[in-house]
Amino acid sequence: MSTLEAALAEWRSALGEANVLTEPEALAAAETTTFATTQRIPAILRPGSTAEVQACLRVAQAHRIPVYPVSGGRNWGYGSRVPARDGSVLMELARMNRVLAYDEKLAYLTVEPGVTFRQAYTWLKERGSPLFITTIGGSPEGSLIGNALERGDGRGPHSDIFNHVCAMEVVLPNGERVETGMARFPNAHAAPVYRWGLGPSLDGLFSQSSLGVVTRMTFWLVKKVPYLREFVFTVKEDAQLWELVDRLQQLALDGTLRNSFYFWNDVKALSVARQFPYEHTGGRTPLPSFMLEQLREDFGRWAVSGAISAQDEELGALLERRLATAMEGLARPLELGPRDADYESPFQGRPTDVNLAMAYWRKKNPMPAEPNPDRDKCGFIWCSVAVPFTGEQAREASAIATRVPRMFALEPNVALLALSPRCLYLVVALAYDREVPGEDERAMACYQSLQRELVQAGYYPMRLGLPGFSEELSSQDDSRALLKRLKEAVDPAGILAPGRYGF
Amino acid sequence: MSTLEAALAEWRSALGEANVLTEPEALAAAETTTFATTQRIPAILRPGSTAEVQACLRVAQAHRIPVYPVSGGRNWGYGSRVPARDGSVLMELARMNRVLAYDEKLAYLTVEPGVTFRQAYTWLKERGSPLFITTIGGSPEGSLIGNALERGDGRGPHSDIFNHVCAMEVVLPNGERVETGMARFPNAHAAPVYRWGLGPSLDGLFSQSSLGVVTRMTFWLVKKVPYLREFVFTVKEDAQLWELVDRLQQLALDGTLRNSFYFWNDVKALSVARQFPYEHTGGRTPLPSFMLEQLREDFGRWAVSGAISAQDEELGALLERRLATAMEGLARPLELGPRDADYESPFQGRPTDVNLAMAYWRKKNPMPAEPNPDRDKCGFIWCSVAVPFTGEQAREASAIATRVPRMFALEPNVALLALSPRCLYLVVALAYDREVPGEDERAMACYQSLQRELVQAGYYPMRLGLPGFSEELSSQDDSRALLKRLKEAVDPAGILAPGRYGF
Repeated sequence: MSTLEAALAEWRSALGEANVLTEPEALAAAETTTFATTQRIPAILRPGSTAEVQACLRVAQAHRIPVYPVSGGRNWGYGSRVPARDGSVLMELARMNRVLAYDEKLAYLTVEPGVTFRQAYTWLKERGSPLFITTIGGSPEGSLIGNALERGDGRGPHSDIFNHVCAMEVVLPNGERVETGMARFPNAHAAPVYRWGLGPSLDGLFSQSSLGVVTRMTFWLVKKVPYLREFVFTVKEDAQLWELVDRLQQLALDGTLRNSFYFWNDVKALSVARQFPYEHTGGRTPLPSFMLEQLREDFGRWAVSGAISAQDEELGALLERRLATAMEGLARPLELGPRDADYESPFQGRPTDVNLAMAYWRKKNPMPAEPNPDRDKCGFIWCSVAVPFTGEQAREASAIATRVPRMFALEPNVALLALSPRCLYLVVALAYDREVPGEDERAMACYQSLQRELVQAGYYPMRLGLPGFSEELSSQDDSRALLKRLKEAVDPAGILAPGRYGF
Repeated sequence: MSTLEAALAEWRSALGEANVLTEPEALAAAETTTFATTQRIPAILRPGSTAEVQACLRVAQAHRIPVYPVSGGRNWGYGSRVPARDGSVLMELARMNRVLAYDEKLAYLTVEPGVTFRQAYTWLKERGSPLFITTIGGSPEGSLIGNALERGDGRGPHSDIFNHVCAMEVVLPNGERVETGMARFPNAHAAPVYRWGLGPSLDGLFSQSSLGVVTRMTFWLVKKVPYLREFVFTVKEDAQLWELVDRLQQLALDGTLRNSFYFWNDVKALSVARQFPYEHTGGRTPLPSFMLEQLREDFGRWAVSGAISAQDEELGALLERRLATAMEGLARPLELGPRDADYESPFQGRPTDVNLAMAYWRKKNPMPAEPNPDRDKCGFIWCSVAVPFTGEQAREASAIATRVPRMFALEPNVALLALSPRCLYLVVALAYDREVPGEDERAMACYQSLQRELVQAGYYPMRLGLPGFSEELSSQDDSRALLKRLKEAVDPAGILAPGRYGF
């Protein structure tokens, strides 16, 4: 019996036959993401509890088999469920999908990794909660915990999602179980409301990391406000945008804009609204500039969107006037279309998959009712970097993000997300059609080139997908040695997610 | 030559004679805090740069001599500069007191560990900055970095100070140098504005820890607002307070109260305003209840203080009306006395040492112009725990905090600090006179008893002083094993601050 076979037998006995998958179709699906990869997955484990996760890792440890954990597995554009290293067994936590605790007064929700944005939203709605959980621009079927651990961004005042969580339960590579913050102490009342705990704070260590499997997390909820007004402004030319970035930064700093807000370029706005206009280009790509200008029509070069929220009309009107003043001479408001009677804003937690359309931009068939970019051979790669919140820095980083994709015959799909009053995320989507021969290679070359140029200009990724760490990302200090030492201390055999974020 | 002598010779050669102190007076002063301790300090090192800190630790490493780093050394009530373990050499970072970077638009200040609250305040004021740095209730001569690393609380919207810092430079016990967040990458523009970096986030690891010496940190600043109105309300009876705690929690959650705010009991309010009334008690302690009731006069059983801040009068008036509504029937406003023409609020960064008076409560001589509780033999011990932000929890924790000191003939000096919409800090000050025989022992017994009772009721410390970890603080998971493994990975010889926070 091979090592793998011996391990599989033990995993089957720990999880039950049904929760250890080795069928070729299931493995092939899990090996597929929205760009070219070569990693093979020998099996998929589906533990149903923390104890089962511990058991899985103990078996992996005993047989020295690498395990790659995912929560929902919808890390689209970053590699979906595909492990960083070839030959890793995939561990999916989707079965662990319980809501474990909720407190309306103290405004928190404690969940397992299988709980999705849609599930949490529905759960709160069904209880008539006056609170909402921050939602993302990505798939509503994404995992709350998975997203938070990757330090994804959400809509609303808790945009920096990982900054509003605490009390993690973590299974270490050796099967030990750790709770973070106050949760490690018995009967600690403050566990779900206070993040730091006592002594060194460990939460950060388990984000973007291969040091543990997070099996529980508490999310702080936001109180809905009676006054919420979404806005979209359009900016005609680039030159006006940078001035506007500077003005809105000041509104974020002084508290006028407490929700996240967004600057989308024309390609991004267009690719959410419709697919590539093959009918106008005679089937050719990329999209010529003059055609982009025609198609974008009245929403101009950039769309600026966000929401004003306030506790009443009076305050809301006041904040809106401030916003209008900042927009003066640079942007004009775009009428928002009619809403359903029961419209709820993504800025108050409603998940939406409209942005998923971007992944289908270059596809020839329309987005299906149940979109799945992996299965549908969408080509889609995110490149995401952190940029100081100034017009000048936004301009420099955006110039690279616009120029490089064009060199590779891809449309530059660029957004700047206002994560805080100090920092923007620049996110560039490379969308293509995996069914067109040669596109996989070209898109990956584009990604590498884009990341290299951004890094050389001083704009470093704040999140990485499978293409992962490269030589450009070497640090100027001893932090790599330290991280290596920490990894060895926690996972000496290197069985947990080897290769993820460089370790 | 002994090991220590050999090390001292090397330290002298690295730092210069003047920066290695072994004079008995200097050592005795450093061995003195505001309660009884037995630790002896063989020498004091005063490095002037990161390179010198590295050199100090390499020497310590080579000779296996424990080193205890402090920034300003004013951790009053928690142990001042006294090392956790006997025989540790003290490393003071006060000479490293440069402001390294400032950005008005992006609102940050980068400093070395010797920079104090007063220094940073003055620095910003001299430049006419529209920004302020969060200040604390403790000594203006305290170190910004030291306080942040202990996760102290400040006044204003950045009350949870450690949540608004980034880009730390850290010297590891082996002399290696690490930068956190994006700062580890060369030319990373986002270093001072984005905290998480890429991969595992390490900041938390170096707070309340013995894993590294922090030699640089960036603090995010707050924009001053044109409308700032401090308030003080008084609450006559305990019963009203718990209802008020619940109401104000909702105002914190909905964003009406964006600054930290405070509930002080009568003893605390009194002990900031005046010293123990020996003249009325015939020199006896503790203070009888009837006398406390007389002395507290119109400020009642509890004082509730804070500040409304807003971008203009209109908004400010609106928020004040909300606050007044919440107070209705439970508390009444106390007139604030006349202000100087150039009054600046501690809620906009002005440091003040008025609270230091508490340490002199039981002293027979008045607080001197330059207070120093260590030198002046003030007895003073903080006991600080995290409490969920509900009236009921506040009542339960406060009951313990009130009952236990009385059992030891100390006046219960109790405050609840609203750190966030979810969590209160309950801070209890045990103030006594170290010159009265037996008081040192009694106060420490009181502290141990208080901590034990609080922990048994589920209220765990969020910060610890020298009395440190005790048996009650054992966790229910494997986190202690993990922390031990991390400490061994980073500091195998255990030379850095052994005993601090349990390791």
